[in-house]
Amino acid sequence: MYPKLYPYFVTIVFVILCTTAFRLVEKNPRVTRYASITGLKAEKVAYYKKLHADAWPAVLRKIKACHIRNYSIFLKEIKGELFLFSYFEYVGQDFKLDMQKMASDPETQRWWKETDPCQQPFPDAQEKGEIWSAMTELFHLD
Amino acid sequence: MYPKLYPYFVTIVFVILCTTAFRLVEKNPRVTRYASITGLKAEKVAYYKKLHADAWPAVLRKIKACHIRNYSIFLKEIKGELFLFSYFEYVGQDFKLDMQKMASDPETQRWWKETDPCQQPFPDAQEKGEIWSAMTELFHLD
Repeated sequence: MYPKLYPYFVTIVFVILCTTAFRLVEKNPRVTRYASITGLKAEKVAYYKKLHADAWPAVLRKIKACHIRNYSIFLKEIKGELFLFSYFEYVGQDFKLDMQKMASDPETQRWWKETDPCQQPFPDAQEKGEIWSAMTELFHLD
Repeated sequence: MYPKLYPYFVTIVFVILCTTAFRLVEKNPRVTRYASITGLKAEKVAYYKKLHADAWPAVLRKIKACHIRNYSIFLKEIKGELFLFSYFEYVGQDFKLDMQKMASDPETQRWWKETDPCQQPFPDAQEKGEIWSAMTELFHLD
C-alpha cells in the first residue's frame, strides 16, 4: 500500500525489539538469595505486623535502591516461641557496600528504631550486634 | 535495496515480537509464595546435604511440572538445634491438586523415603502427619 513507509515501520519495530530485549536482560540479572531468621517478642507481634502492613515508602525505596528484590518476611510460632524468617534476592554488584548505604540512611535508621525492639536476636547475631542470623542455602531449583 | 522483501522481513519481525511478548507474559505469572520450616536431625545433616547437592532429576522435573518455581532450602543451627527453611513460588491454578499430583508420583515417594527420616517435624505438622510447618507471610516487596 505505502511501500515508502516501510523503512520507518521497520525502524519502529527494531526500536521496540531492542527495548524488549533490554527489558528481558534487566529482568534477569545475576541473583544471590539471602535467607535469615530471628525471634519476635510475643508482646510486640501486633505492632510488628502493623508496621509491616503499611511499611514506610522511603524505607521501601531505599531497599530497592540497594538492589534488593522479591523481599518477604514470614512469621511462625514453634513450641510457644515466635520466629521471623526473611527471604530476599540481591541483584547488585557489591552487597556489603549496598548494606552500608542502607544502614547510613536516616529514614531506615528511624524505621529500625521501631523494629529492632520487637525482635529477639539469636546468640550468633547478638555476638555481632546484629538482629538477623544468616542461613545457609543447601538447595535451589529455578 | 530489495523493497519486495520488506513484507517478509516485517512478518519475521512481527513473529519475533509476538514470541517475545508471549515469553514476557509466561515469565510473569500470578505468584503465591510458600514458606515453611522443619527440624533436621543432627546425625542426618551430611546425608540430607548430599541428597540435595545432587537431587534426582525426575523429582526436580515433577516439582516444575507441579508449577513450583524459585525453590530454595536453607539450613540454620540455633542454640544447638537444626532448622530447615524452605521457600518457593507457586505459579499454577490449583495448589492442592498439584500437591496431590506430586504426592502420587512414585519417584517423589521414593525421594521422600530418603528425606523424611532426616527431618524432625514440629508439633503442628506432626498432628497433620506432615513434615513441614507453613509460615505466614507478613511482608512482601517485589
